[in-house]
Amino acid sequence: MRINGRDYRTIWLADDGWSVVVIDQTKLPHFFEVRSLASLEAAAGAIRDMIVRGAPLIGATGAYGMALAMRRDASDAAVSEAFDVLNATRPTAVNLRWALERMRRRVLAHAPGQRVAIAYAEAAAIADEDAAVCSAIGDHGLGVIEVRAARTRASRPFQILTHCNAGWLATVDWGTALAPIYKAHRKGIAVHVWVDETRPRNQGASLTAWELAREGVPHTVIVDNTGGHLMQHGLVDMCIVGTDRTTRRGDVCNKIGTYLKALAASDNGVPFYVALPSSTIDWRIADGLTEIPIEERAEREVTHLTGLTEAGVTETIQVTPAGSRAANYGFDVTPARLVTGLITERGVCAASEQGMRGLFPDAEQAA
Amino acid sequence: MRINGRDYRTIWLADDGWSVVVIDQTKLPHFFEVRSLASLEAAAGAIRDMIVRGAPLIGATGAYGMALAMRRDASDAAVSEAFDVLNATRPTAVNLRWALERMRRRVLAHAPGQRVAIAYAEAAAIADEDAAVCSAIGDHGLGVIEVRAARTRASRPFQILTHCNAGWLATVDWGTALAPIYKAHRKGIAVHVWVDETRPRNQGASLTAWELAREGVPHTVIVDNTGGHLMQHGLVDMCIVGTDRTTRRGDVCNKIGTYLKALAASDNGVPFYVALPSSTIDWRIADGLTEIPIEERAEREVTHLTGLTEAGVTETIQVTPAGSRAANYGFDVTPARLVTGLITERGVCAASEQGMRGLFPDAEQAA
Repeated sequence: MRINGRDYRTIWLADDGWSVVVIDQTKLPHFFEVRSLASLEAAAGAIRDMIVRGAPLIGATGAYGMALAMRRDASDAAVSEAFDVLNATRPTAVNLRWALERMRRRVLAHAPGQRVAIAYAEAAAIADEDAAVCSAIGDHGLGVIEVRAARTRASRPFQILTHCNAGWLATVDWGTALAPIYKAHRKGIAVHVWVDETRPRNQGASLTAWELAREGVPHTVIVDNTGGHLMQHGLVDMCIVGTDRTTRRGDVCNKIGTYLKALAASDNGVPFYVALPSSTIDWRIADGLTEIPIEERAEREVTHLTGLTEAGVTETIQVTPAGSRAANYGFDVTPARLVTGLITERGVCAASEQGMRGLFPDAEQAA
Repeated sequence: MRINGRDYRTIWLADDGWSVVVIDQTKLPHFFEVRSLASLEAAAGAIRDMIVRGAPLIGATGAYGMALAMRRDASDAAVSEAFDVLNATRPTAVNLRWALERMRRRVLAHAPGQRVAIAYAEAAAIADEDAAVCSAIGDHGLGVIEVRAARTRASRPFQILTHCNAGWLATVDWGTALAPIYKAHRKGIAVHVWVDETRPRNQGASLTAWELAREGVPHTVIVDNTGGHLMQHGLVDMCIVGTDRTTRRGDVCNKIGTYLKALAASDNGVPFYVALPSSTIDWRIADGLTEIPIEERAEREVTHLTGLTEAGVTETIQVTPAGSRAANYGFDVTPARLVTGLITERGVCAASEQGMRGLFPDAEQAA
């Protein structure tokens, strides 16, 4: 995607041909800085400290971390150690483990002398595949937007509401929920995006707004309370969100607050789409409400906020009274009945077991 | 209500018998400071600068502002000038105009020599009446809590979710939505309150949490995205919110985001109550969605936040990228179909014209 007129991915090889460069997402949206990762430890630190975030991007960073480790020591013991160090950085990230296992299998199948080249090639393949999957999601989602925008009065842009950040910053390129929006915008369809700020971590206000601005997509940041009012007044034509995990029946586990927007969409006849790479479908589970444990995160994400002062300094402030406790649930589950359709890399389907099996007949069977 | 073991209202006469004292709400929740208002200008400034806020408290402050003005000059011209100065501070506050009109009528009915005493007495009556109305709302709401809490398993506290601040800080005493909670807590019913932070102005995180803490009511601050998840998991027994304006059919115009919580309550069978003094019922209008214009407020309330730094300094930070616009709708409308009941100073009724007419047969007829 484009930043200041230049094409970027979220992770790439430096001009030296071996060190890895990422965008420091902890500095966004106020400062655009890149970081060079030249060792296993640097890659692990980038994941741990959330310099990179988003499941697909974490996976790609882990893969390149294995390649960096091989440069220093390509022995079997070093492969095993690199795997463990990287896997421990974000223990619940399914994509990370998947990418590391793929890397380990691949390098161990070759003699140590070949492992550096093999590891870099495999990491590049993982990154390229993710970009291709997201681009395909964008193409299929574009089809949905085209059909729906054609029905909307032409006097104003097609209005899309999104929650959290499921953009290219969370992936290698294109993003998931935002990919169809970028494709539509580049095709000349007039779109406008309502960006939920997405408390507590504000990924909408900080990352989604920043991404959209770089690509020149018209957008407006709103507090998470606002979407229902907009839908009541016909100001939202479609919702698109991402998902962290989707059950085989089509229940969607995504950032906390997604369920409230899906309820409002249903109450107002607004189509509610979820964009996902099929890797996030968990075929083993059916009922998202009873089968998906919801992560509780630190209170401080609710009680404190970080931003830029008038003086241009990054500062953290407390908004709650001293002594008042906070609870911080990371995700909620949107039941399949509230989801209009799933936008995947193979096409659009109903949020149901039948719908998903139709697109993915080759997927692993339920446990 | 109690602060640090002492009983307070939000507005009271100082020991000198004539100057007026208020809590500086712009300093909450981090600093508890009171301000002495000794002139018409000071009272007008306190309203304008939101040192006091909440419709009933603004009304009482305006009334005392008239009394302060009479002390300096009790002529007809001075009455008229004081009315205009105070009325211009918050032009859309219905309660303010109502209180000022009542004060003007009362003082003009007496000779200038009597007006100071008359004005102080009338302002005190307005404050006392508001406290009595809120206390009655608390008693009727307590009845609802008692019945529902009796049905809940006794192994955990009765869990109530509230949005924004409809507490005693917004009124003279007791509050509206929080009054039943205070009455229940004082009666020994174990309650726990989920406090929506209520972006963008964070009245929940700053004011409601602070109030509840002062009275020792167990509570937990959550981001506005969280309520749906809690209700899906049986962690909310009842919602109570306030209202700025209620139509004669029972549609409720309250702080933005109220509608989303009402949808989640309906989807999960959680009772959703609205507490209100009957003065907020607008008998002239029926359909809240089409007949109530929604105020759009400054973008800066969305893009910037104020709080306390680690060093104990009040600081304002920007959370959105430079250049990204924001929209800030102040209120939304919750349709009567999503409201379980209205808790008024005369009792609890259905959110319908029939329900409200049953309690208020003497109210003005619809236009």
